[in-house]
Amino acid sequence: MINIGVIGYGYWGPNLVRNFAETKGMNVAAVADLDEGKLGTVRRRFPAVKTTSDFRELLNDPGVDAIAIATPVNTHFELGMAALKAGKHLWLEKPMCETADEARRLVDEAARRNLVLIVDHTFIYTGAVQKMAELIQAQELGRIYYYDSIRVNLGLFQRDVSVISDLAVHDFSILDHLLGEHPVAVTASGMNHFPGTPENLAYVTLYYESGTIAHVNVSWLAPVKVRQILVGGSKKMITYDDLEPSEKIKVYDKGVSFTDDPEKIQEMRVGYRTGDMWAPRLAVTEALGVEGAHFVDCIEHGKVPKTDGRLGERVVGLIEAANKSMRRKGETVYIVQEKQS
Amino acid sequence: MINIGVIGYGYWGPNLVRNFAETKGMNVAAVADLDEGKLGTVRRRFPAVKTTSDFRELLNDPGVDAIAIATPVNTHFELGMAALKAGKHLWLEKPMCETADEARRLVDEAARRNLVLIVDHTFIYTGAVQKMAELIQAQELGRIYYYDSIRVNLGLFQRDVSVISDLAVHDFSILDHLLGEHPVAVTASGMNHFPGTPENLAYVTLYYESGTIAHVNVSWLAPVKVRQILVGGSKKMITYDDLEPSEKIKVYDKGVSFTDDPEKIQEMRVGYRTGDMWAPRLAVTEALGVEGAHFVDCIEHGKVPKTDGRLGERVVGLIEAANKSMRRKGETVYIVQEKQS
Amino acid sequence: MINIGVIGYGYWGPNLVRNFAETKGMNVAAVADLDEGKLGTVRRRFPAVKTTSDFRELLNDPGVDAIAIATPVNTHFELGMAALKAGKHLWLEKPMCETADEARRLVDEAARRNLVLIVDHTFIYTGAVQKMAELIQAQELGRIYYYDSIRVNLGLFQRDVSVISDLAVHDFSILDHLLGEHPVAVTASGMNHFPGTPENLAYVTLYYESGTIAHVNVSWLAPVKVRQILVGGSKKMITYDDLEPSEKIKVYDKGVSFTDDPEKIQEMRVGYRTGDMWAPRLAVTEALGVEGAHFVDCIEHGKVPKTDGRLGERVVGLIEAANKSMRRKGETVYIVQEKQS
Amino acid sequence: MINIGVIGYGYWGPNLVRNFAETKGMNVAAVADLDEGKLGTVRRRFPAVKTTSDFRELLNDPGVDAIAIATPVNTHFELGMAALKAGKHLWLEKPMCETADEARRLVDEAARRNLVLIVDHTFIYTGAVQKMAELIQAQELGRIYYYDSIRVNLGLFQRDVSVISDLAVHDFSILDHLLGEHPVAVTASGMNHFPGTPENLAYVTLYYESGTIAHVNVSWLAPVKVRQILVGGSKKMITYDDLEPSEKIKVYDKGVSFTDDPEKIQEMRVGYRTGDMWAPRLAVTEALGVEGAHFVDCIEHGKVPKTDGRLGERVVGLIEAANKSMRRKGETVYIVQEKQS
Repeated sequence: MINIGVIGYGYWGPNLVRNFAETKGMNVAAVADLDEGKLGTVRRRFPAVKTTSDFRELLNDPGVDAIAIATPVNTHFELGMAALKAGKHLWLEKPMCETADEARRLVDEAARRNLVLIVDHTFIYTGAVQKMAELIQAQELGRIYYYDSIRVNLGLFQRDVSVISDLAVHDFSILDHLLGEHPVAVTASGMNHFPGTPENLAYVTLYYESGTIAHVNVSWLAPVKVRQILVGGSKKMITYDDLEPSEKIKVYDKGVSFTDDPEKIQEMRVGYRTGDMWAPRLAVTEALGVEGAHFVDCIEHGKVPKTDGRLGERVVGLIEAANKSMRRKGETVYIVQEKQS
Repeated sequence: MINIGVIGYGYWGPNLVRNFAETKGMNVAAVADLDEGKLGTVRRRFPAVKTTSDFRELLNDPGVDAIAIATPVNTHFELGMAALKAGKHLWLEKPMCETADEARRLVDEAARRNLVLIVDHTFIYTGAVQKMAELIQAQELGRIYYYDSIRVNLGLFQRDVSVISDLAVHDFSILDHLLGEHPVAVTASGMNHFPGTPENLAYVTLYYESGTIAHVNVSWLAPVKVRQILVGGSKKMITYDDLEPSEKIKVYDKGVSFTDDPEKIQEMRVGYRTGDMWAPRLAVTEALGVEGAHFVDCIEHGKVPKTDGRLGERVVGLIEAANKSMRRKGETVYIVQEKQS
Repeated sequence: MINIGVIGYGYWGPNLVRNFAETKGMNVAAVADLDEGKLGTVRRRFPAVKTTSDFRELLNDPGVDAIAIATPVNTHFELGMAALKAGKHLWLEKPMCETADEARRLVDEAARRNLVLIVDHTFIYTGAVQKMAELIQAQELGRIYYYDSIRVNLGLFQRDVSVISDLAVHDFSILDHLLGEHPVAVTASGMNHFPGTPENLAYVTLYYESGTIAHVNVSWLAPVKVRQILVGGSKKMITYDDLEPSEKIKVYDKGVSFTDDPEKIQEMRVGYRTGDMWAPRLAVTEALGVEGAHFVDCIEHGKVPKTDGRLGERVVGLIEAANKSMRRKGETVYIVQEKQS
Repeated sequence: MINIGVIGYGYWGPNLVRNFAETKGMNVAAVADLDEGKLGTVRRRFPAVKTTSDFRELLNDPGVDAIAIATPVNTHFELGMAALKAGKHLWLEKPMCETADEARRLVDEAARRNLVLIVDHTFIYTGAVQKMAELIQAQELGRIYYYDSIRVNLGLFQRDVSVISDLAVHDFSILDHLLGEHPVAVTASGMNHFPGTPENLAYVTLYYESGTIAHVNVSWLAPVKVRQILVGGSKKMITYDDLEPSEKIKVYDKGVSFTDDPEKIQEMRVGYRTGDMWAPRLAVTEALGVEGAHFVDCIEHGKVPKTDGRLGERVVGLIEAANKSMRRKGETVYIVQEKQS
């Protein structure tokens, strides 16, 4: 039984507590938050859970095995490092922290102490992303030509991070999981329509060594909510509409093929091929529950999480690069490649 | 009665002839094409129309008042200039020609000879774009924050022009018509997935002096056809889905508002406002018919076409700039501003 | 403060308890269920709520002001009557009971004892139905020509009641609320595809004195979930798609108009008129919460619930009539009209 | 080469002439219409086609092999019989004629003279219906439980026939083609909301010996156009949305299964099964062109058309039965079974 302490009971914390409470092998031992009202809510809903306004109590409690941090991102590094130093396994909300440098230090600390560090990139645990990964790994799509995502809505403007940190972060983690390849360069454009606020819409392009190109369109200023991803391969193509209630993933037997017909030598030698569409049945388990069970499994059996600190670090690196390019009006930012295991 | 001669009876020419034949005040006098088989089709469908494989016959015919050119873009300049020099009013398919310099010379020639020059940016004459223009001009949207277009499908790859010339050209003309403002800078990224072919997908960002930003996502490599534009303003926002059979335009009473509430001084002072949606009834007349009648009206009453050579020239300039940025991996290309009347 | 006891913690009971617990002016005093495991769940989630396997404890507790009954429908009458006789206000799940005769006896008992009796026809408290009622009452639609509902999905087959009791019950309550008129006759067809099970699809037609016709298509055997209602009036028409996340209600300025043009005297003198579409913003409060607050308000201020026992009784009467017609292969069943206040 | 004469150049006639003109092996010899203006249009579009206001000229012309009749339905019998008696093969628009008795006399006359009689139930020749038929014949769906169609729009009211003749006729022909079984009984309800006009909405239920039930909802008074059919079988289910541009047919691996689990003996022993969805690629040839070529093939090789006079006769019989039930407020009308070959 893993006893977990949760720091932060604001927007996402309640989802963590509710899911952890129902995860087999996990017990929510305590919740820390600075807001006494929120602690009252915890006590009403979960009378057995201890509450405190001092997160240090959780770190010092020898009965607590793991810490989950769901506070603002600018506190992740400090709190996370303290948790690791206290010998706790660590669940960090996304993005993992503010800089890739901080991320690396957390990863190193966890490795040194042999502690599990998971970053909560929840999308990776959805049936939809799992199915896409499965299809791509089975070479069903062939060579991947592009990944194109639109992720827009009328959203609450955030105070200190751009829409890239808030929304493109999901695509960065999905891309990392699907492609198993890290981009070599990033360009981004974006705009801040309101003085004193971070960029509220952005367009990010990622270039890969293999020739794959990825494009991510994110906005807090759209009248309708759109969550649509296209992935095009040489053999098949996928659409993923996260707002579809049941058929989120559609696989199209469509593509482009070349001809060597000598009569067409003067013409463009590209034709297209269209065929059936297929919508595979997806697992319907709540992603956060799957992820909670995976965390338990990693702790108990010494496994590496699917969304480990290294993935989290790469995602933070992309956020940094995209923000940098955006602020330089689309200048190309090259990514220093590290070896992926 | 305007007698028009049509040069080129390939992909778009038949639409022109069919529409011109039904346009009040216009008579299709002759069609020229190098392919005798196509001329046979013309004769079968329109026995009264003269056919020839030599376009010069049309230019030399004093009974011909206007010439429409629907040949490949690399012949537009030469044919168009010849038509103007022969004293004919000119209808040019889009894009108008290959370079802004050529475009300017056509515009100047037409002006010098007091001839009407219209560029067939058909979208401008649709009920949907007319309604958007009407709403924007009536200040219904307030200040325009952004224009975001996705225009993708599994398309025939073109031989000598990129997907920008083929698809983004529509957005460039719509933007020119809607905003009455020319961008100051362009960045573009794109990719050619097949050796020896032009770029088959591209992402273009346009920056405007007023703070408006426009983004255009075009592709010949998408498994599904999408034609969706979002326009966000300070007061209202629009979605335009060209594939919707009846409710193409939706106007959302949604937006962002600022608060000066002192209690929220520590929080982000941007909130959002949601309200009704409204789908105005649109004119259903075929755009090409509206445009034909407009051409007649401009010739007979000395009016300037909505899609005149200057608009055509600005569009060609944007295509050049976007292609240039794309080939330089997204480098910013500045647009030399000319005065718009 | 109304202290409520809930009998039945199966499918719907947990929703009631969760909502009542958050309803201002209401306190969940106790829950009764025969299943000890379910009572354990209640204690874990709501440690302050008393639990018992004997519903009589709730009826005998003088601290309990009201009883909510969420047990199988064949127990509603007996339990409901016992609650009223114990002097408790009564919240009954839908359908209210098995026969109109039982319904009337419950209504009479509540009236005699001056107790509030509400039937949980939750749809009536949704923003969508409220908006429709508002538009109809404001004469925005003109004369109502028809109501057409399709309510199908792949559903759990019920053991002892037909799909009419399970699904058409929603339309019967919505119709009662919207039209303020009771049908004069009912016909229904349906089928049971599996021996020993109740009808799994049914088509019900309701005829009204005013000329309105209503049709309800319900099924547990459809591959996709559909929840779509059309309401046509002489001035405007409505579509209500309950699965649309935001624009559930659309109002069409469309209809049919007559012409007296003498030149058309030989032709059909009906033409149609099309105009704008409008999607009003809807209240987003959870319907069950609205209904809970309404129940408190009715008890405290002696008001009549929107979904009182009389509405519940009329709905049960329609279920009886529709089932009867269906089992007689569509024979018309006439409804004995009672005066509606 | 089949020379065909077309009688009637109103709503549908132009489609026939255009398609016949492009059908290999067919030549449009002449068109007859009472309206001289329409004949002028024919001459302008098809200068080689003879025109006349006297249909008898076509019947008397020995060069004419076949006659297509696209006049109002109340003239079909007389004109069709005259054409057959003149020894011409016959193409009749749907519905074939006004009564099943007339239909049978046409069928008999054609048989006696060894002439081909095709009824233009165009839907049967679409890629969508062909795919459904193929799936059903291959036993992919298992036993057919139901067919459920909604076919509504804001339509031109017809003068002398109900919405059943205008719209349900399509479903009657599709059902005949798909099921290979004729219903044993029909019930229908409907309403005429405008004095002096035929019924503008109707609900028809068809009962089959095998246990299949079919339901058809048709209306000229709906604010939106809907063309949706569900077909449920014991193994798979189909949705057919004719307004979808590309994926009209979707096949769901969903259904209901029974359990014999003794522990569930007290519960309903029906569960459901959900799986993948699959949208097969459909033939995109225009249905009317396919049908024209089929007509030529039947004439030249003595084949029986897929939509022969017997199918047309059965459809007319169902229209009669449904109208009769509707006018008797839903009374069951039994269909006298004839042997289907």
